Amino acid sequence: MEERAISQAIIKRLPRYYRYLGELIAQGVERISSNEFSKLMGVTASQIRQDLNNFGGFGQQGYGYNVKNLYEEIGKILGIDRVHNIIVVGAGNFGKALAGYSDFERRGFRIKALFDRDPSKVGNEYNGIEVHPISGMKDYIRENNIEIVALTVPKAAAIEIAQQLVDTGIKGIWNFAHTDLKVPKDIVVENVHLSESMMRLSYNIVNRGRGAGRK
Amino acid sequence: MEERAISQAIIKRLPRYYRYLGELIAQGVERISSNEFSKLMGVTASQIRQDLNNFGGFGQQGYGYNVKNLYEEIGKILGIDRVHNIIVVGAGNFGKALAGYSDFERRGFRIKALFDRDPSKVGNEYNGIEVHPISGMKDYIRENNIEIVALTVPKAAAIEIAQQLVDTGIKGIWNFAHTDLKVPKDIVVENVHLSESMMRLSYNIVNRGRGAGRK
Repeated sequence: MEERAISQAIIKRLPRYYRYLGELIAQGVERISSNEFSKLMGVTASQIRQDLNNFGGFGQQGYGYNVKNLYEEIGKILGIDRVHNIIVVGAGNFGKALAGYSDFERRGFRIKALFDRDPSKVGNEYNGIEVHPISGMKDYIRENNIEIVALTVPKAAAIEIAQQLVDTGIKGIWNFAHTDLKVPKDIVVENVHLSESMMRLSYNIVNRGRGAGRK
Repeated sequence: MEERAISQAIIKRLPRYYRYLGELIAQGVERISSNEFSKLMGVTASQIRQDLNNFGGFGQQGYGYNVKNLYEEIGKILGIDRVHNIIVVGAGNFGKALAGYSDFERRGFRIKALFDRDPSKVGNEYNGIEVHPISGMKDYIRENNIEIVALTVPKAAAIEIAQQLVDTGIKGIWNFAHTDLKVPKDIVVENVHLSESMMRLSYNIVNRGRGAGRK
């Protein structure tokens, strides 16, 4: 694979390709023309070709795409052909919701433990995942090969915990707190800012007549 | 304001500007130069100027931005200077988490009710918000001026409920289900696809060396 920077726009589209390919597999579809795939996705065929060409192509002239093969290749590109160990910090409703989200396990994301500072929550289990005291977080990360920490705690706590995570060897933070985290470059931060998502929805509702849906 | 289409990229940045301006207000900052604001946001000053020029500017040469004024103006652009009534369909952990998210109320998003098909959940209250039977959803929407429906139900249920919503007069769907919803153009859909967010995180972890963070 060529060494080049891939834009975040493509990285946003790949999981969606992956999801549709997974649905096609579930429906027993073995191959699909680039035109059919483009129709299904609501994206131009040339956009799909361009996106996939960044990773070496995968389509064959006159045949289209082998669904299972393309699914597996995109899975490899996304790094979900192997297991990622995760802990969730914050055993509130969002933390519990993540613990109960069985879809992750299927995609190689394994939530190993929840952590909370509230002693009354420690020892509880959600979907078979136990709540540990926050004081044991750093040791747990080191001993259990944890790669990703999901933060479902309020803003101030998220900033504080992110600082504690810096020297633990984790590779990514999945941040649900309504703030931007400042961590060294070798830790990837993926934000889920729900208030901002809601504001985009509001904007697009208020401005429906003004071409607000334009990509 | 000029009638023109605003790109979704700008619409993604506006809520972030809004969040930082809110933090500045909380800190008692009254005005900020475009350079300081740019540093704080990690975005170039010309980017900020360009973005805001789409809506008429707001900055003054030699003065910078009036923080409170810009905050209010962006709030108006985002349509959060007025109240949006919301219901949440699905009283599972995600639904409960949304009901408990007090941040929304502050920004003009008022969650009025939860709905669920499970009779054992009906009548429960979370953060003072009651769970209603799903059979009453359409009437409730019409009688309570509901503008936005958040769907925190599994994929198949989300597709089914989205169809029921088509003729209710709602303006937007906040979709947490792992599927794309097909609804008429006058209903805006904002997706929160957590699995896809997790896959982007995975990609960026696996490809850290390859310029994966490029915007």
